[in-house]
Amino acid sequence: MGEVPRSHPRYNSLMGRKLLTEAAADGLLADSALIAHGRGEAYDYLLGETTCESALAAIKQSALLMKHAKRCVISVNGNSVALAAADLIRCAAVLQCPIEINIYYRTPERMTALNSRLEKVRHEVSEGGAPTDWKGDWQAAVSKVTILGIDPDSLIPNLEGPRANCCSAGIFSADVIFVPLEDGDRCEALVEMGKTLIVVDLNPLSRTARLATVTIVDELMRMAPILLSYLVNGVSFAPPEWDNEANLDNSLAVMLNHLAE
Amino acid sequence: MGEVPRSHPRYNSLMGRKLLTEAAADGLLADSALIAHGRGEAYDYLLGETTCESALAAIKQSALLMKHAKRCVISVNGNSVALAAADLIRCAAVLQCPIEINIYYRTPERMTALNSRLEKVRHEVSEGGAPTDWKGDWQAAVSKVTILGIDPDSLIPNLEGPRANCCSAGIFSADVIFVPLEDGDRCEALVEMGKTLIVVDLNPLSRTARLATVTIVDELMRMAPILLSYLVNGVSFAPPEWDNEANLDNSLAVMLNHLAE
Repeated sequence: MGEVPRSHPRYNSLMGRKLLTEAAADGLLADSALIAHGRGEAYDYLLGETTCESALAAIKQSALLMKHAKRCVISVNGNSVALAAADLIRCAAVLQCPIEINIYYRTPERMTALNSRLEKVRHEVSEGGAPTDWKGDWQAAVSKVTILGIDPDSLIPNLEGPRANCCSAGIFSADVIFVPLEDGDRCEALVEMGKTLIVVDLNPLSRTARLATVTIVDELMRMAPILLSYLVNGVSFAPPEWDNEANLDNSLAVMLNHLAE
Repeated sequence: MGEVPRSHPRYNSLMGRKLLTEAAADGLLADSALIAHGRGEAYDYLLGETTCESALAAIKQSALLMKHAKRCVISVNGNSVALAAADLIRCAAVLQCPIEINIYYRTPERMTALNSRLEKVRHEVSEGGAPTDWKGDWQAAVSKVTILGIDPDSLIPNLEGPRANCCSAGIFSADVIFVPLEDGDRCEALVEMGKTLIVVDLNPLSRTARLATVTIVDELMRMAPILLSYLVNGVSFAPPEWDNEANLDNSLAVMLNHLAE
């Protein structure tokens, strides 16, 4: 896959495809990761490949929850590292929270590859300058972001095998977890632990989307800079009680309208 | 990915995923093939993972066109070989038509791998017995199916580079082409050549779906045995003039209803 020009009307979609196939070649992804990405592409196509109003509301709500968490953690898998590692590290630096690598098909090789990639991207983010409007010592803030996951010391109850592994300093003790692209079983287990769970899922009908506290129905590369901006600048309104089901139905309506046209 | 039990409610979908990831490991697929499969999975989910009435009508229409063709050819790529090589060879044996490997990202390695896979599956199909209700010498019928594509000697006009390659004994001289999972550019070029084009595409809004003569909005593994059965037994009705756009709209309506529920 060649270079994608910024001016291409489907730049984001084509760039996502390029990043994912490169990440697969680099050993960051499980076998089924590209298929999962393709499912996302199809739903994003139905969304019109833009951040809809209900997604924007969900991003604002997420920024509020993450900023006011006692212990926030950002949980990443291969796809989210491939698509949005830099912006997720920026979010962690602004929040001063850890990032935990937590993957469904856990192998030592993939965990090591993901850890190395995140360390490399953290260095680039540190060198690359602070987000617009952020005040303070950016390099110091980025250097304080811990990357967890490679040495798990806790288990998520109600999950079997390696996918139950997590870190006590991360997912296990967090009250708010931002976890893009999570699978249904683990989403359910985390909600059962009493966590406030924020997910990014392009399928508003998925089990993950329906179980999470806040579901952002949007493409990760597109929503990550928006989330970062709300984390830096704050959210200027006090939202009413969050109704995730109603918000999901609004996203679904966008897809329905797009199909019906 | 482990064994998928036949009794699993999503057997077909999980088996497709397994076949595709195995084909990728075997070097049969381009980088973006798994992503394309994932897009198909998402649309199939919206279809309810069943063959809808409009798909069945399109399969019947396709069987009629293929049986009454002067020169029919079945054009395959990596994904269609991975998912349905055996049933497509059975269809070719019943029709006594060639199969042509015609892939978008053509490399000698992939062409050779696909050719070897098809030769292997043809042998298995020959040994495996005739389809129900088929009369004649099955092994002789299967042995007469030529597998084209590895030595292209013609070009599809209006396409650039290796993707224009085709065989004079196959796609170039055919009047009816059955080509599951075709891309939009090549679909357009083949229609411009005056071909009757039958495609299998789970996205009723895709350019391929909208350009083809007959579009079967169905999953390839699920529709292939149905097509085979119509090719063996004939279609018992004379359909009215084929309205592909109306048929596509019916498939779209199935998805809309499924989303709206």
